[in-house]
Amino acid sequence: MDFDACDHVRPIRWMGDRLELLDQRKLPFETDHVVCADADAVAEAIAELVVRGAPAIGIAAAWGVVLAAQALTRADPSVDSGDAALARLQPAIAELRKARPTAVNLAWALDRMCGALRATGVDWLPRLASQAEQIVAEDLAGNRAMGLAGAQLIEPGSGVLTHCNTGSLATAGFGTALGVVRAGVAQGRIARVFAGETRPWLQGARLTVWELQQDGIDATLIADSAAAHLMAGGQVQWVIVGADRICANGDVANKIGTHQLAIVARHFGVKFMVVAPSSTVDMATASGADIVIEQRNPAELFGVAGKRHVAHGVRAWNPVFDVALAPLIDAIVTERGVVAQPDASRMAAFFAPKTSA
Amino acid sequence: MDFDACDHVRPIRWMGDRLELLDQRKLPFETDHVVCADADAVAEAIAELVVRGAPAIGIAAAWGVVLAAQALTRADPSVDSGDAALARLQPAIAELRKARPTAVNLAWALDRMCGALRATGVDWLPRLASQAEQIVAEDLAGNRAMGLAGAQLIEPGSGVLTHCNTGSLATAGFGTALGVVRAGVAQGRIARVFAGETRPWLQGARLTVWELQQDGIDATLIADSAAAHLMAGGQVQWVIVGADRICANGDVANKIGTHQLAIVARHFGVKFMVVAPSSTVDMATASGADIVIEQRNPAELFGVAGKRHVAHGVRAWNPVFDVALAPLIDAIVTERGVVAQPDASRMAAFFAPKTSA
Repeated sequence: MDFDACDHVRPIRWMGDRLELLDQRKLPFETDHVVCADADAVAEAIAELVVRGAPAIGIAAAWGVVLAAQALTRADPSVDSGDAALARLQPAIAELRKARPTAVNLAWALDRMCGALRATGVDWLPRLASQAEQIVAEDLAGNRAMGLAGAQLIEPGSGVLTHCNTGSLATAGFGTALGVVRAGVAQGRIARVFAGETRPWLQGARLTVWELQQDGIDATLIADSAAAHLMAGGQVQWVIVGADRICANGDVANKIGTHQLAIVARHFGVKFMVVAPSSTVDMATASGADIVIEQRNPAELFGVAGKRHVAHGVRAWNPVFDVALAPLIDAIVTERGVVAQPDASRMAAFFAPKTSA
Repeated sequence: MDFDACDHVRPIRWMGDRLELLDQRKLPFETDHVVCADADAVAEAIAELVVRGAPAIGIAAAWGVVLAAQALTRADPSVDSGDAALARLQPAIAELRKARPTAVNLAWALDRMCGALRATGVDWLPRLASQAEQIVAEDLAGNRAMGLAGAQLIEPGSGVLTHCNTGSLATAGFGTALGVVRAGVAQGRIARVFAGETRPWLQGARLTVWELQQDGIDATLIADSAAAHLMAGGQVQWVIVGADRICANGDVANKIGTHQLAIVARHFGVKFMVVAPSSTVDMATASGADIVIEQRNPAELFGVAGKRHVAHGVRAWNPVFDVALAPLIDAIVTERGVVAQPDASRMAAFFAPKTSA
C-alpha cells in the first residue's frame, strides 16, 4: 500500500478565497461541504460542530483569520502593516476564539496567527496566509512522524483496537492514533484493525470506520463493552488511542472509556499506546488527579440521531473523558519521539527542557 | 419502602382464557399488550421478542400449552386422560419449542408441562394449569429468595452497578440481579443504583432504568465504557449481574460486557455478584472454555431503532455474551444460597449432590 495514498479524507480545504469544511454532523451518509466565505461563517461552523477535533478546529480558525484579513484589505487597501491589521482584526479573532472556548488548539492557533502579524510590513497578508499554511503543514508532518514512530513499536501481524476518532477528520490529515494505524497497515505490521463504537457520540461507529474505509483499510466495529472478549481471544496486541491532555507524570486524559480499555488491556497483557502532538503535553499539570473531568449533557445518552429510547425522568451520568493512569500506559508517542513506560522522571527528561525553552 | 410493593412491572398476565404479554419491543414509550388467544399466538410472540428473558419465555410457553389444551377440550370434550391429551397436544408443544430454540428455560418449562400430563386422569386440564401456576410461583419465590440472599452481602450505604436487564421483565417478577437491587434498596442497604446502557440492544437504557422507575427506584444511566471512571470515583461497591450459564468451576457466561466489568471491578476492589436461578448452573460444563459464544447479526451495531449510522460495507463483530472467569467473582447467588469466591470445589460442594439427585 502506498503510504501517501492512504489518507483520502480532507475535512478542511482552503480554496484561496473561501474555506470548504466537510460537514461531520452528516457523516457517514452525506458528504456535504459547508462553504465559509468569511470569518463569521467559520466561527459558526466551529460552534455547530461542522468541524471537530482539536487540531482541525485550530486549523479552521487560522483560515478564518485569513478570510477576515482578505475582507479587511478589500474594505481598506491602505492597511500597510501587520500591527495595524491586527488592531482591525481583533473583533473577528475574538469571535473565532469564543466559538469553542474549551478547545486548547483553537486559542493556540489564533495566538500563532496574531504572532505572525506583529512587526510585519506591507506584505502582512501573504505572511498571515503563510502562517496558516505552516500550521497545516506542521500538523500533517507531525502526524506522519507520530505514525512512523508509533508503527515501529508494533510487531508484524498484530491486531490493534482504537477508540473514538483521531484521524484525518480530527486533524490536518493522517491523524494521531489513526495515523499510527495508517502507517502500521501501510508497513504491513498491522493485520487486524478494530474500532470501538464510542458511546455516546459514536465517533468510532460514524467516523473512524468510515474514514478507514475511504483508504481501503478494513476495520471491524465492536461494541465498547466487547473489548475484553476480543482481547481474551488474542485478536489484539495493541490498544492505540489519542489524548486530550497528557500530564507531567504521564497520566492521560482522553475520551470516556480510555481508562477502562487501559485496565482491560493490562489484564490481558495487551500493550497500550497514546498518540498525540507534543502540544497536548501539559507539564504544568502534575497528574490526572488535578484534571477536572467535564460533564456533558445527559441527553446524549437518551437517544441516537434525535430518536429517544430512554424513559423520561431518568437520570444519566455523562463524563466526556476519563484519565488512564501512567502505570497502565506502555508508550506515549509524539512527533518528537516515544516515551516508553511513562512516569514523572521520564516525562521530565523528555519534555521539560524543551517546553521550558 | 414496602418490599412487596417494589415490583410493578408484570410482563405476563394469565387471564384464564388468554395470555396478555407486555410488548417489550415498544418499551419504554409504549406499554402495549399483545393478547394471545391460542398457542400459535404465544409461539409467535416469543419468536418476535414480544417477551424476552429466559425465565419469562419459559413461563409464556407454559401458558401456551394451557391455551392449546383448552382448545383441545373445546374441540373434543371426550379426551379423558393426560396421556391422551399429551398425544394430541404434541404439534402445539413442538411449535412452542422451536419459537426460540436457544432459550434453555423454554425447553425446561415445556418438559415440566409434559411431565404434568403423564399418568393423570380426567382432571388433566386443571392439573396442567396448576403446573403453569407452579412454574410462575417457583420463579417468583426463587427470585425473592435470591434478592434477600444477595442483599445480605451488601453494606448499608453502598452503590451498585448493573448490566443488561435481569428484572421483572425477564422473569415471573422481581428479577434476579435486579431482584437483589430491589431487595437492597428496600432494606436501605443500596444508596445508589447505576445501570449500563448495554449496547447493542440497549436493554439497560430501554428496560432496566424504566423498570426501576416504575418502582420509584432512582437509577442513573451510564455509557458502558464509563464504568471504570465511575468506580475510580468510589461511587460503586458492588457490580451485580445475571447469568446465562454458570459452569462447574464458577465461570459465568452472561451478556457481552460482563467480563469487562468483572476485570474493571477487581482492578478497583469493587465486589462482583452473579445472581441466577440454580437451573442456570450447568455442572456438566467444566469451564467457560467449553462454551461456544454465539455471534449475533452485525447489523445490531449498525444503527439504533432502525436508523443506520454506520457506513455500508463496514464489518462488525457482535458476540452475544462473554465469560467472566470465576477468580473475578466474589459471590454466586441462587435461590439455594450463596457460593462465595466460587471455584470448582466450592461449586461441587454446593451444587453437585443436589443436581445429581
